[in-house]
Amino acid sequence: MITYKINWAIKVVICLFLSLTPNINIGQEHPNLILTKTGVEKIRAELGNVPLFDSSLQKLKEEVDAEIALGIDTPIPKDYSGGYTHARHKRNMIVMQQAGVLYQILEDDKYAQYVKDMLMQYEGMYKTLPLHPKTRSYARGKLFWQCLNDSNWLVYVSQAYDCIFNYLSKAERKKLEKNLFRPFADHISVDSPQFYQRVHNHSTWGNAAVGMIGLVMNDQELIDRALYGIKGVNLDKTAKDDDGGFLNKDGKAGFLANIEEPFSPDGYYNEGPYYQRYAMYPFLIFAEGLHNVKPELKIFEYKEGVLLKSITALLNLSDSDGDFFALNDGQKGMSYYNDALVTAVDISYYFGNQDPGLLSIAAEQNKVLLDDSGLAVALGIKNGKAKPFNKQSINLSDGPDGKQGGVGILRSEDLELVFKYASQGSSHGHYDKLSFSMFEKGDELLQDYGLARFVNIGQKGGGNYLKENKTWAKQTIAHNTLIQNEGSHFSGKYDIGSQYHSELFFFDISNKKIQAISATETNAYPGTDMHRTMAMIKSPNFEKPFVLDILKVKSKTENQYDLPFYFLGQMIEANFDFEPASTMNVLGNDNGYQHLWVEGKGTSNSENAKLLWLNEGKFYSLTSSVNDTDELMFTRIGANDPNFNLRRDAALMIRRKDSKNTTFVSVIESHGSYSPVTESALNSKSNVLAVKVIYDQDEYTAVIIEDINNDQEVFILCNLDNNTTKEHKLKIGDKTYQWVGPYYYSGLTKK
Amino acid sequence: MITYKINWAIKVVICLFLSLTPNINIGQEHPNLILTKTGVEKIRAELGNVPLFDSSLQKLKEEVDAEIALGIDTPIPKDYSGGYTHARHKRNMIVMQQAGVLYQILEDDKYAQYVKDMLMQYEGMYKTLPLHPKTRSYARGKLFWQCLNDSNWLVYVSQAYDCIFNYLSKAERKKLEKNLFRPFADHISVDSPQFYQRVHNHSTWGNAAVGMIGLVMNDQELIDRALYGIKGVNLDKTAKDDDGGFLNKDGKAGFLANIEEPFSPDGYYNEGPYYQRYAMYPFLIFAEGLHNVKPELKIFEYKEGVLLKSITALLNLSDSDGDFFALNDGQKGMSYYNDALVTAVDISYYFGNQDPGLLSIAAEQNKVLLDDSGLAVALGIKNGKAKPFNKQSINLSDGPDGKQGGVGILRSEDLELVFKYASQGSSHGHYDKLSFSMFEKGDELLQDYGLARFVNIGQKGGGNYLKENKTWAKQTIAHNTLIQNEGSHFSGKYDIGSQYHSELFFFDISNKKIQAISATETNAYPGTDMHRTMAMIKSPNFEKPFVLDILKVKSKTENQYDLPFYFLGQMIEANFDFEPASTMNVLGNDNGYQHLWVEGKGTSNSENAKLLWLNEGKFYSLTSSVNDTDELMFTRIGANDPNFNLRRDAALMIRRKDSKNTTFVSVIESHGSYSPVTESALNSKSNVLAVKVIYDQDEYTAVIIEDINNDQEVFILCNLDNNTTKEHKLKIGDKTYQWVGPYYYSGLTKK
Repeated sequence: MITYKINWAIKVVICLFLSLTPNINIGQEHPNLILTKTGVEKIRAELGNVPLFDSSLQKLKEEVDAEIALGIDTPIPKDYSGGYTHARHKRNMIVMQQAGVLYQILEDDKYAQYVKDMLMQYEGMYKTLPLHPKTRSYARGKLFWQCLNDSNWLVYVSQAYDCIFNYLSKAERKKLEKNLFRPFADHISVDSPQFYQRVHNHSTWGNAAVGMIGLVMNDQELIDRALYGIKGVNLDKTAKDDDGGFLNKDGKAGFLANIEEPFSPDGYYNEGPYYQRYAMYPFLIFAEGLHNVKPELKIFEYKEGVLLKSITALLNLSDSDGDFFALNDGQKGMSYYNDALVTAVDISYYFGNQDPGLLSIAAEQNKVLLDDSGLAVALGIKNGKAKPFNKQSINLSDGPDGKQGGVGILRSEDLELVFKYASQGSSHGHYDKLSFSMFEKGDELLQDYGLARFVNIGQKGGGNYLKENKTWAKQTIAHNTLIQNEGSHFSGKYDIGSQYHSELFFFDISNKKIQAISATETNAYPGTDMHRTMAMIKSPNFEKPFVLDILKVKSKTENQYDLPFYFLGQMIEANFDFEPASTMNVLGNDNGYQHLWVEGKGTSNSENAKLLWLNEGKFYSLTSSVNDTDELMFTRIGANDPNFNLRRDAALMIRRKDSKNTTFVSVIESHGSYSPVTESALNSKSNVLAVKVIYDQDEYTAVIIEDINNDQEVFILCNLDNNTTKEHKLKIGDKTYQWVGPYYYSGLTKK
Repeated sequence: MITYKINWAIKVVICLFLSLTPNINIGQEHPNLILTKTGVEKIRAELGNVPLFDSSLQKLKEEVDAEIALGIDTPIPKDYSGGYTHARHKRNMIVMQQAGVLYQILEDDKYAQYVKDMLMQYEGMYKTLPLHPKTRSYARGKLFWQCLNDSNWLVYVSQAYDCIFNYLSKAERKKLEKNLFRPFADHISVDSPQFYQRVHNHSTWGNAAVGMIGLVMNDQELIDRALYGIKGVNLDKTAKDDDGGFLNKDGKAGFLANIEEPFSPDGYYNEGPYYQRYAMYPFLIFAEGLHNVKPELKIFEYKEGVLLKSITALLNLSDSDGDFFALNDGQKGMSYYNDALVTAVDISYYFGNQDPGLLSIAAEQNKVLLDDSGLAVALGIKNGKAKPFNKQSINLSDGPDGKQGGVGILRSEDLELVFKYASQGSSHGHYDKLSFSMFEKGDELLQDYGLARFVNIGQKGGGNYLKENKTWAKQTIAHNTLIQNEGSHFSGKYDIGSQYHSELFFFDISNKKIQAISATETNAYPGTDMHRTMAMIKSPNFEKPFVLDILKVKSKTENQYDLPFYFLGQMIEANFDFEPASTMNVLGNDNGYQHLWVEGKGTSNSENAKLLWLNEGKFYSLTSSVNDTDELMFTRIGANDPNFNLRRDAALMIRRKDSKNTTFVSVIESHGSYSPVTESALNSKSNVLAVKVIYDQDEYTAVIIEDINNDQEVFILCNLDNNTTKEHKLKIGDKTYQWVGPYYYSGLTKK
């Protein structure tokens, strides 16, 4: 709460400061937006001496020279994102920005002339350009089918304009500003308030675009519009967007509000890492511009320095290959090798605390920005300052004030567990409370499906979101979490889901041998409380850390509970009998169930169901405590998918019918390896003999894990009390356990 | 035929020579088998100066030291290949061989003592050891469940014995030879003729084992038994083995016969690359021993130097990552990084022509043998002699005399097409005449399924062949070739398939712009002739080479023809309407059809069916000329697979019913790319406008490929005449084509 107040206080100060600043053009020097006059001089002085900078420059020069050789094309806009005119205008904006940088660094007029010629062509076209002919967007652009892409364009082109500002005559500048930049900025803002006047990643791009051209043009009105939104425009607070979300429930708008709202104090971005990566660039590049032109704003200190914190958070939301966890709508494979992250890492290093860990990531990216920050990074690497970027277990709160749940990541040796108990995640959120995914050395073994979309692949719905994103990917059944009565959390309704978030019960990584996270969800199914606790335990009897998963459910009514585990890889063995399907039927009718085939069904006649699989040369075992009435189902994604938009991935699902209160307990092990080259299978068997719930009442749940060495470990969870100093005492059988805090863990003992 | 006679002549000379050599022990020096006395001296002199040799030695030393620290265990045999005793004895044989080498190179007695102690434990156990308790094998071993593994053991242990020969007293040697080695050699040979007295990879191991211990013991009787088989033993020529193959139809046996029979003059091994890799080690290591101890045999010159030729052939049977093509029973992922190929590459370099291309592979393997050959390789690399190993298009004949069909590989830029028209391939053969698979940069895009087995993964049928290998993997429907009336080639019968082979029609790679292979098969379905021609064409209108596939079928009867394409990757788009399954049914009842689900069915109302998919970041299009009565089916593997032994891979299958003579024509394109990091989709569309059969009679088949630039290419195939100098003239419409040889290709022309 205190943090929140301070942020508002800073905002008030900034507002006051800005309102007192006279709105006059003091004749700024250029470049001053991303490149600066002194920065460029320093860069020129270092040329040839800083390998990573020099190679980045050389690559860029080759690229741009090739484009210049091809000639300029500014086609009349007509296509969606899969098509030529879209791709061409997108490419043009990038090349202009790059050519501008080359002009500054290399002082070769051909680059400035290229930018000028292209800008003049755009100026000639834009004056009379109607709305883009494609009508699908809620806010149509002119160069592109949506204002979002027009904003992308202006963010890049502002930088190009700044670079060649002094190359142009006053009359040329006036022409461009009057006929191109100003009306362009107006179209994406005052003419498209439904796009601009919101807290949303789209608006962030819009704000940055307007603000950056404003900074170059030294137009205080545009800068204000960027920072605070369009003066006097208030949208209908009950209107909804295409995704069913409110357009602007709180009436907030502008760049500062867009920093304020989606970022938690820990730097978690509420839509998740995939969209944070996308939003990152306008946040940081505009911030860099503001820092350079309006240093008095202290933008990098805004909200306790959340912009730079968010970079650290984002890097921690990637697996060991640098791929971002596919939380909410996230396309798998997006990683910190994306150019937006080159920007983020370089800016974070330069404007932050020169963290040497960032240098190792920059070295992997093998590319730096061609500005002061990139030079600093390349110099750091050259001078041998790089150190490994060590990702640790981390808990990232969600919500503007950090009080709307969060995402916790447990890391031990090569294993990573991602546990999600966040808020809805804006319009890109999934209905996946208390779900998790798991990785080893960058290979996902229990998956979060991610989005259902093939971004920019025209044949798949123009490269846009597919129907299956809503009918499958967002639904609860697409995630490793509990589904009640075949319905999604919050009935799959965005306006309900947006009102709630899960609550952290505890996050404890103080003991490296047992790291645990625990959270509750009481709103996803009214009348039903869920409480999931996941612990990553390093035990001497196990080759690698294992995960203990306790999901306790309490309900006022009898329900059917489904708990799927979307394992990736080749099924090796199950310890229960199941009947394979002779014809394959669909599992259900809606809420994502219509997309699942049932490959086999069985029941366990022991107290544990065990599945063993092989993925990327590593064996995994899932051992779940089950009843003899639990149905064990092998499902496969792909039913009712006429265009083959979904991956044919498998799950083992535990179905428990007619239950009110119940507890699901599982152990997930990683063990051994297999190499198709040596053909040796090492440690291919599960180490778990049995997982047993030995006590399960309101106050406490106790689990025992017996291993094949006849040793055991006991874990007791306080279900109601997360006080870290509270003393507990519990007798189970003839044994009494005593401990302090929300859980007890015995360590390894003889059976 | 001439080649064949010469080989027999050499054999006769060898026989005469050997029979004249007095069988006396001339007191050989040791080591002399793989390491030699002078070789070891040279190695010791170079130590510390040859990086790859030194690092290989260091790695080995660390491994062996760790094993020595663990102590010796020679457990009473009891397990199949998934179990402990199997793995332990297998590990022991390797470590003994390695410790022997270390003793010789490092002159540290601890290694000799370790080998001696372990051998004495084996001696103590072996004397009274009964047959292995597991009964599944047709030839049970004593240490292992099958003689094959016992033979592996003796091949390695012979080398260890040779290394510590002089470390042992005469009495110790006598004890070992009398109680362990001699009875061991007898068990796998005279006591197990059904295993030993054959032409089969099993027997090769047996021969090498007996021969290598014979060479060390200087026992001419054992050496003769190794080279020529057991004197006077003739197996029942009509008896069959577990796979349904004849045990020994021709009565041939011994190491020389095992070189003679399975290798074609080009060095192709009839079971395919996966088993060649497995058989390679005993062939080469015994040959090296023979070369060292009996140089007068000139074993590396035997059958025109086929042993060394076979290494070149094997290396050419790998994709650009070094993974072997999964022809016949082959486990995917096996590659030239396997230790057997370290042996093969080093021996090939040293005993062959010091091909600098082999050095680049050795450098990738990052490991050399610790003997003369490995030293030569490491020195070659050190001295900068390595050059890239350039794999070219190649045609490898099959059969002892090279007249039983073959395997052709077309390579152009990054694309590789593998076309199989070989003989049955012994008991590991598949019923896949005229099938193909295709690769780009090491990624398979149209797959050969390979085997159905998880080698050494105990939970999957003890790591042995699974039932599904026979019911699925060997069947014709598991391959990209023609299936008539839902039956496999040769009715899936081994003894029928073994009598026939396909015939090469032509192989022409003289023009880099169009490389082509063509073969016929007239026995797979009696009464039906198949003729498939595949050309890899580099056309200026296409980004990458494309493949033209013409499969002409002539039959006396009306049949149903199925032609599947097992594409790997994400389906992006099809140009025909299809009905997705609402419940999934099995495609058929047997011959592999019982393992296929039907995911969707459709028909084309244009003359072409087009499928576009994405695999490993590259787009592919298959465009097939179809009739409006052709059924187009999407199938997926996995039905009737109760233990999830099969991969859930997809195919598009063209089904043409009630047809006698017909021609299937397709074009396969690779185009563009997709990166999930940049999210840019380049050239994601097919370049083919239409594929049309414009003429199709007995003598000629003509195909036209029209592209989206409105250009076209014409390909005319002579169906009956493969004479390369014959002149042809054909009028189609108002155009007359004239050419020489078996095909005409127009190159690119305006439409």
